[in-house]
Amino acid sequence: MTNPKQPTAVSISQFSCAVPHNYSETIQLAHGGGGRLTARLLEQVFLPAFGNPALVLGHDGAMLDVSAGRLAFTTDAHVVRPLFFPGGNIGSLSIHGTVNDLLVCGAIPWILSAAFILEEGFPIDDLKQIVNSMRDAAARSNVSIVTGDTKVVDRGKGDGVFISTSAVGKIHPKVNIAPQRAKAGDCVLINGPIASHGIAVLSAREDLGLGGTVQSDSAPIDAFLLPAFDQFGDALHVLRDPTRGGVASALNEIAASSGTHIELVETDIPIDEPVRGACELLGLDPLYVANEGKVLAIVAPDSAQRLLELWRRTPGGEQAAIIGKVAAAPAGVVTQKSSIGGSRVVDMMTGEQLPRIC
Amino acid sequence: MTNPKQPTAVSISQFSCAVPHNYSETIQLAHGGGGRLTARLLEQVFLPAFGNPALVLGHDGAMLDVSAGRLAFTTDAHVVRPLFFPGGNIGSLSIHGTVNDLLVCGAIPWILSAAFILEEGFPIDDLKQIVNSMRDAAARSNVSIVTGDTKVVDRGKGDGVFISTSAVGKIHPKVNIAPQRAKAGDCVLINGPIASHGIAVLSAREDLGLGGTVQSDSAPIDAFLLPAFDQFGDALHVLRDPTRGGVASALNEIAASSGTHIELVETDIPIDEPVRGACELLGLDPLYVANEGKVLAIVAPDSAQRLLELWRRTPGGEQAAIIGKVAAAPAGVVTQKSSIGGSRVVDMMTGEQLPRIC
Repeated sequence: MTNPKQPTAVSISQFSCAVPHNYSETIQLAHGGGGRLTARLLEQVFLPAFGNPALVLGHDGAMLDVSAGRLAFTTDAHVVRPLFFPGGNIGSLSIHGTVNDLLVCGAIPWILSAAFILEEGFPIDDLKQIVNSMRDAAARSNVSIVTGDTKVVDRGKGDGVFISTSAVGKIHPKVNIAPQRAKAGDCVLINGPIASHGIAVLSAREDLGLGGTVQSDSAPIDAFLLPAFDQFGDALHVLRDPTRGGVASALNEIAASSGTHIELVETDIPIDEPVRGACELLGLDPLYVANEGKVLAIVAPDSAQRLLELWRRTPGGEQAAIIGKVAAAPAGVVTQKSSIGGSRVVDMMTGEQLPRIC
Repeated sequence: MTNPKQPTAVSISQFSCAVPHNYSETIQLAHGGGGRLTARLLEQVFLPAFGNPALVLGHDGAMLDVSAGRLAFTTDAHVVRPLFFPGGNIGSLSIHGTVNDLLVCGAIPWILSAAFILEEGFPIDDLKQIVNSMRDAAARSNVSIVTGDTKVVDRGKGDGVFISTSAVGKIHPKVNIAPQRAKAGDCVLINGPIASHGIAVLSAREDLGLGGTVQSDSAPIDAFLLPAFDQFGDALHVLRDPTRGGVASALNEIAASSGTHIELVETDIPIDEPVRGACELLGLDPLYVANEGKVLAIVAPDSAQRLLELWRRTPGGEQAAIIGKVAAAPAGVVTQKSSIGGSRVVDMMTGEQLPRIC
């Protein structure tokens, strides 16, 4: 039995024939055709970055040993625009997003797949940069990219590159995460300041003149969660990464699933000043703006303070905070106490503030 | 421990609020925003079709029990054009393609994820039809769609719908499939006539006037493989589904991986007359045209005849055939004996004959 982190090779073909023409600098339809140009793209871009004996791009799959237990399985399509933004790009985002989805299931990330939809004419150098960011993000998140696929669509039928990632993780034996487990008395924690991903992407897209002041928070949240799984186990009732739709949408879903009332305290919610300023300027409520390196935890009250201390000691978690609590009624409702003392309902967002944010 | 075919629910949220406007008939950017319209799309399109307690679209993942063993993990992006073609559509294709990738790893399909990239303005009725085809194909293939994601891109930045599917299967304990296992003396089998998927899609795209005479072979190949795993086990050396790039590309990859010579006999390769006629008309070599319900098996010589008989008794396998054999040299080369007695090299395709075939 092999080590699951070093999966067995199954079908990386060795293409020994010389390719009789120069390697093109942009993506051609033939790069997606399954022939020699597809193999060449694999050899020149994907294998050097993901170089992993189990990696197979374009056909079949990876084979891996597993021990008995519980698995988590998740998928995300990534269509962020622009592809490169302050603090990351579609490649790093696609790894962090999917790894974080596993972590909020209480799972330890294990293996990941990546499916690329490339637009004809996309610069291969940009693809290399994206793929190298994926490699770095996967290494940082301790996950192996073991299988993939690449398709090419005609010019004007895509938007550079879309990346769909799926991943499998092993659920930590001590945890039992479910949105239904939020209950009256629980505390709501977040590991840092909100809304920076959405503002960073919007700023890059619309040239808002924020310069590089707002960086996306795109990052794996494993440093916050893996030690928490060990130390708090079953006291972690619900975990959620507040991505598109922001903190408001994530908490509304939890309130609805668990039939509880979640009460936030506005002044306790961490937000960086440039992000707050940009939100005010643009008329955006930061509670609805996407995050890509944040986690909400709903925990038993007697664990909240210790979890907060753990997170504040974790790099990047200096501003972690208890931002609210769970009450019994009115069921399914999220409210926020404002800085001037009033209370307002924080509803589910109807449309979206920022399209193509992830 | 729950039955793996009936996974435990983890986070399907119950959205109890009334939606204050009519359900739109086409996809809007806000359907991908993670707010109420996303939830509504989930409720009206995805959940009725995939209705499965573990299904989660848009966030988190599915959680499932697994027993110790070997897993296969695979992914595919689907960009076929047109979306609907004789014999299937992008939905059924996305399930069959990924299920078949698991099967040729020697795995029993188990769970599947689906990530949708929708173009603004795409008709919701068409989406429902595609999603219902996915439901039917998953049921036919005995696989559960347990998690998913939906994103929306602006009009002109996509092409209706792209679907990326990933799947996990459990490798049959008796099989050991690897392209390196092809060896001199082995026989090469196929379960039916080649090239119908590529010709059906091209015919629908270009309006070739073939009418409905050529149907795609898009189908799961489990009826051919699951009994073969039991009966032949280790004698099945290599399995491959000859999709884009066709039989020629699949066999070239196997010849290269195993360092063997694969000799085909042209007159033994099954092909339906209308497909052969269309290929001649269009100047396409059917060996390079995509299949979506075919499997190539490279098996020990003493099992070949019995596997052939099994496949011929299987519905859809009436034209199964032994189409060639494996020799020692020249290594890495595929050749074909023609009907008039000569032999030609069947090379790896350099570009592609038919873009966006799957």
